Amino acid sequence: MALTQVSSNKRCDGYQKVFEHDSSELKCKMKFAIYLPPKAESSKCPVLYSLSGLSCTEQNFITKAGSQQAASEHGIIYINISTFTVYSGCNIEGEDESWDLGTGAGFYVNATQEPWKTNYHMYSYVTEEVYVSLVTPWGGHGALICALKNLGKYKACIYLTLHRLKLFSGYLGPDKSTWELYDATVLAESYSGPELDILIDQGRDGLFLSSSQLRPDNLIAAFSKQKIPVVFRLQQGYDHSYYFIFSFIIDHIKHHAKYLNA
Amino acid sequence: MALTQVSSNKRCDGYQKVFEHDSSELKCKMKFAIYLPPKAESSKCPVLYSLSGLSCTEQNFITKAGSQQAASEHGIIYINISTFTVYSGCNIEGEDESWDLGTGAGFYVNATQEPWKTNYHMYSYVTEEVYVSLVTPWGGHGALICALKNLGKYKACIYLTLHRLKLFSGYLGPDKSTWELYDATVLAESYSGPELDILIDQGRDGLFLSSSQLRPDNLIAAFSKQKIPVVFRLQQGYDHSYYFIFSFIIDHIKHHAKYLNA
Repeated sequence: MALTQVSSNKRCDGYQKVFEHDSSELKCKMKFAIYLPPKAESSKCPVLYSLSGLSCTEQNFITKAGSQQAASEHGIIYINISTFTVYSGCNIEGEDESWDLGTGAGFYVNATQEPWKTNYHMYSYVTEEVYVSLVTPWGGHGALICALKNLGKYKACIYLTLHRLKLFSGYLGPDKSTWELYDATVLAESYSGPELDILIDQGRDGLFLSSSQLRPDNLIAAFSKQKIPVVFRLQQGYDHSYYFIFSFIIDHIKHHAKYLNA
Repeated sequence: MALTQVSSNKRCDGYQKVFEHDSSELKCKMKFAIYLPPKAESSKCPVLYSLSGLSCTEQNFITKAGSQQAASEHGIIYINISTFTVYSGCNIEGEDESWDLGTGAGFYVNATQEPWKTNYHMYSYVTEEVYVSLVTPWGGHGALICALKNLGKYKACIYLTLHRLKLFSGYLGPDKSTWELYDATVLAESYSGPELDILIDQGRDGLFLSSSQLRPDNLIAAFSKQKIPVVFRLQQGYDHSYYFIFSFIIDHIKHHAKYLNA
């Protein structure tokens, strides 16, 4: 795909860049951010993907997550993507009406229902169109399903917050069996790919957990049953915000680097 | 002063808080941010001040600078202040008309001219009203003049970017000798206080330096003449943005911690 550079700023000895391109999967313009560590100037580096959640543009992660210092140190190329940026350009009727459907909440699925099915193909965009030789997705629920559904394609997968599957009939229709194609708990129950080493941090005192929109217990049970190694840390006092992500991102980049640089 | 807590979020094992209070120096409501490292729960910790520059609210530093990880590690309380937040509440005629005078650019001076002289006393606010037992200011030019003018009151002083003194006759009147009271180069030339150890990082490729609004050479000459130790690093490829600050903040917090925790 042909990329147009939108911005480039030196940061932590490397470069933080933003690119724009026409996406064949999404049928519209797409923007993503990429951090190039200094090591990338002279050698091949592994790529880590961050899949931002509700209402985030590619700028949220650049600005607030504090990932560049550790990416620079471990020689990791860091790509961050958001559904919000791209879908804002589709001009679908009603796309801005709800906080959990449309532009603000594209999720990493391939929609099958009108009016979303032409553009809302973020799952294929991430796993096919932008896939680079050594990638390892992370973020929320979207990252986990990318790893669980693409056996052997990703070397490691972690994420910081668990969002309970709330896939709206709007994207996938009323048949609940189609929802399970994007349900990490269901996918984990039948996982038979290469060994994964999963690290999950979850803020204990966030709104989403207390309102039961997040159900880490179901997922942990599925991993245990399948004997998939998982470290789950329920972090006291933390919520679901970027302050939480900033607090643990160094641990997570180290976790990835162990496999990616092996 | 009586403080009202505006927000509190757990971050890097400590807490990022924002407080509001009525300021006697500024004659209006003031907001500042404070990061409390975990060590502060059980023991006394030194305080580091960050004085934000043009057009910044207290949120810019919280969100973009990435200071909390190192402050947590070294047990440093971090207060960040901005002139923009407070002066936005003064409702002075014409305050929003210019980017370099009024709300967007209060500077850390005590104004003597109308219409600014009632409220624009940020210099006294920082050095008197919010002064805590062990403080060490840093930021831009404002931080350096606080240290140079208050002999022995601050243990260390550093800053990341040099802004050439551009004190507008608007704040201090046409008599240029009054401007020198807030000119770091002039203050350095006559400095006779306790030994300072100054660390300066300057982005080489920023707009302000190339347009000669920043003149680090004059300041370095003054320090050299006075035999004040200074490390000046002109960083290739970096500008004047938060990406630059984020890139070197860990070095600067370490520099402070050496003195503050001694």
